[in-house]
Amino acid sequence: MNADETPRLNRRHLLGLEDCSREEIRLILDTADSFKEVIERPIRKVPALRGKNIVNLFFEPSTRTRLSFEIAEKQLSADTLNFTASASSVVKGETLRDTARNIEAMKVDCVVVRHSASGAPLFLSQCLERAVVVNAGDGAHEHPTQGLLDLLTIRDHMGRIEGLRVAIMGDITHSRVARSNIWGLRTMGASLVVCGPPTLIPPDLEATGVEVTHRLEEAIDGADVIYALRIQLERQQGGLFPSLREYARLFGITPERMAHAKPEAIVMHPGPINRGVELDSAVADGSRSVILDQVTNGIAIRMAVLYLLNGGGEREDA
Amino acid sequence: MNADETPRLNRRHLLGLEDCSREEIRLILDTADSFKEVIERPIRKVPALRGKNIVNLFFEPSTRTRLSFEIAEKQLSADTLNFTASASSVVKGETLRDTARNIEAMKVDCVVVRHSASGAPLFLSQCLERAVVVNAGDGAHEHPTQGLLDLLTIRDHMGRIEGLRVAIMGDITHSRVARSNIWGLRTMGASLVVCGPPTLIPPDLEATGVEVTHRLEEAIDGADVIYALRIQLERQQGGLFPSLREYARLFGITPERMAHAKPEAIVMHPGPINRGVELDSAVADGSRSVILDQVTNGIAIRMAVLYLLNGGGEREDA
Amino acid sequence: MNADETPRLNRRHLLGLEDCSREEIRLILDTADSFKEVIERPIRKVPALRGKNIVNLFFEPSTRTRLSFEIAEKQLSADTLNFTASASSVVKGETLRDTARNIEAMKVDCVVVRHSASGAPLFLSQCLERAVVVNAGDGAHEHPTQGLLDLLTIRDHMGRIEGLRVAIMGDITHSRVARSNIWGLRTMGASLVVCGPPTLIPPDLEATGVEVTHRLEEAIDGADVIYALRIQLERQQGGLFPSLREYARLFGITPERMAHAKPEAIVMHPGPINRGVELDSAVADGSRSVILDQVTNGIAIRMAVLYLLNGGGEREDA
Repeated sequence: MNADETPRLNRRHLLGLEDCSREEIRLILDTADSFKEVIERPIRKVPALRGKNIVNLFFEPSTRTRLSFEIAEKQLSADTLNFTASASSVVKGETLRDTARNIEAMKVDCVVVRHSASGAPLFLSQCLERAVVVNAGDGAHEHPTQGLLDLLTIRDHMGRIEGLRVAIMGDITHSRVARSNIWGLRTMGASLVVCGPPTLIPPDLEATGVEVTHRLEEAIDGADVIYALRIQLERQQGGLFPSLREYARLFGITPERMAHAKPEAIVMHPGPINRGVELDSAVADGSRSVILDQVTNGIAIRMAVLYLLNGGGEREDA
Repeated sequence: MNADETPRLNRRHLLGLEDCSREEIRLILDTADSFKEVIERPIRKVPALRGKNIVNLFFEPSTRTRLSFEIAEKQLSADTLNFTASASSVVKGETLRDTARNIEAMKVDCVVVRHSASGAPLFLSQCLERAVVVNAGDGAHEHPTQGLLDLLTIRDHMGRIEGLRVAIMGDITHSRVARSNIWGLRTMGASLVVCGPPTLIPPDLEATGVEVTHRLEEAIDGADVIYALRIQLERQQGGLFPSLREYARLFGITPERMAHAKPEAIVMHPGPINRGVELDSAVADGSRSVILDQVTNGIAIRMAVLYLLNGGGEREDA
Repeated sequence: MNADETPRLNRRHLLGLEDCSREEIRLILDTADSFKEVIERPIRKVPALRGKNIVNLFFEPSTRTRLSFEIAEKQLSADTLNFTASASSVVKGETLRDTARNIEAMKVDCVVVRHSASGAPLFLSQCLERAVVVNAGDGAHEHPTQGLLDLLTIRDHMGRIEGLRVAIMGDITHSRVARSNIWGLRTMGASLVVCGPPTLIPPDLEATGVEVTHRLEEAIDGADVIYALRIQLERQQGGLFPSLREYARLFGITPERMAHAKPEAIVMHPGPINRGVELDSAVADGSRSVILDQVTNGIAIRMAVLYLLNGGGEREDA
């Protein structure tokens, strides 16, 4: 293959899907597809990132995302280091900038960062001269690998993304998952409808071409993909939505409501599920649910992103 | 060696010793013996589980058990991932079942689980279609690798298990170590005597053929193995036994009391020791103590269990 | 090379720089220099400690030191295990001695220990028959790998250590960094001046040949190396020094004060920096600052120490 044909990711960091082109997203999804084959092997290990150091810098608690990244890293043969906020000198008041510069001075190749502050990964990337930053979720901003694994799961099940109608339900305003999905789906040519209480949908969203409804039946009707967001139980105190019971009654996805969906529609959720709130167990575990495929695809997507950013594909500016 | 001669472990999980046959236990002990040689090498590493992922899922704090498993895993060249309750999305209220299914969807091969609830590993194993579960201690139920390492240590020092008299002292009711030892020792043909305050011995134990006494001298007299359990200091509040001082006076193993034992009797303890309570330091560190051998054997046993369950020996149902 | 020419480290443990000879320090620095070349490679991995187990036993929170050791260990291909106090059975009241003996019984090769009690690593080393102990900071006693990385950084930038004038500013009494630097610098032939509030300088220090001043200008004047210690904010309650504002006014290193230094003088700090207190940001990030070189050298020094103690160079008593 000559240089012109080599697929490239024209970026050093993955901070969000907002500025990812259709070609970049397609490259990541295709690379992930090739890693899926590795995942199914009895020995799930490729030497691609041997001798590279990756620090998982988690300032928020996380099970699945940290585990998923760490598995992806180990399957690429990278050396992984975990750093969580509570066990660290963040206690001593070190600034994020000093943390970043210290990590780079230790010759770390890549930082996977989760932070409660929107923009923390961007700031980190600006402090680093050489190391790669992957956003593993920042505040209500973006969670790009989640968005990508969702795109991959949709493409797997529907054969395409373009032209599909995707309905996203829940707290759109505070959801980094929703934001990454909206950017990614739009770029890949899907049409979008969001549904939730008026207090939890950004007022300016409709102007950007996203359909907005507050009636679940309207959102489900004709949708190819029904994506339930996780309700952040801690948001309730803010008075932005009523009781969980009322939320479930108005916006919970039940088998009855799924009857209005297309027969081939799939159900997605980023996890962990509040069963009986945003999603009925019968739906979460039902035949239309692709939730566990999302989890498996998370490994493949993270392998692909880490591989492409850490030297798997040459960058034009390299 | 033809297929009929190949030693096999006829199970997917190790949840307890209650249902392990004499042949299975012997296979694990013999396999552990062969790993002991690996442990003594300068380079303690075999490629047996290369490319396999093992998650250590600890919902209770633990030093030695987690460390022992992790060392065993790394010496088998597996990729290890640690997941502790406090640093995880258990905080977010995810159910154990969802945790299990997510872990499996990440293509994890094996889950080593410690949980304060008896039966949690069994429940986990029922949620998993493919991954192997190893119980690292569940509530007051079982701690099978502890039972196995104790069996190995007894066999090492006494040359056999069958026909030995083993005395177990302490809080039998609440001890998963006692339960796994009782099942394992009985299966291997040892005779058992337990000794402790009446409030801390299950009333139905005697009916199962275990001798019960409340006088330490009686238990020690004629015993080949003297096994002191750890007193859970937090149990004291429950009023189930009097002061530590009184416990030590009645049930603490001292050099004076050891004078009543057989000259070749060995002293065991699962650790960590409450020195001066269940065990006098002179006994814990004395010539009859095999406590540190138990720790070393823990590595060999865990290597053996992980090896046999993760493809080291073919299963008949495979 | 015959045996007499082979460089050796005549010790099993690295507990402090107090008893390290000039030859030993030089051997470590020279070995670190050779590892620097490894650190700059795209694949930063040598097989030197393959199959060795190293436990990072941290009883105090730490970001950079734990990360730095773990990176060094992984780059030497050792298996690393992390053990932090909060997630461990220290909760259960196990003594340090029992922890040590258990770790050794698990056939761990090397223990990197940080502890708030001075002397804990020494005590640990006395409990261990075979395993190697590396002190990663104990109370106000020593932090020898910090001292060594500082020596390496000085030698890198100034071409030598002997004959240099090194000024150390801050809380000398409570600083393990200061103590390790004082021992190491003195052994390597530097002359020392310390500067801080009278309450924070040990009264007997002057008798050992270290110059003492309470005026920052006097310390900076003619110094080749200006080393600012981190002010432990938690010390303030003790009434040993006044407000942070007053500390910064009297002892903070500012661009104005640096004007009194030699033109080629370098500025050092062990991190994390209290910006605006002991060090002005303009100085910390200025052209004379070698603070990030210290961090990089930390990896090389830790690789060298772990390599030399774990069989990289034969010991005479082996």
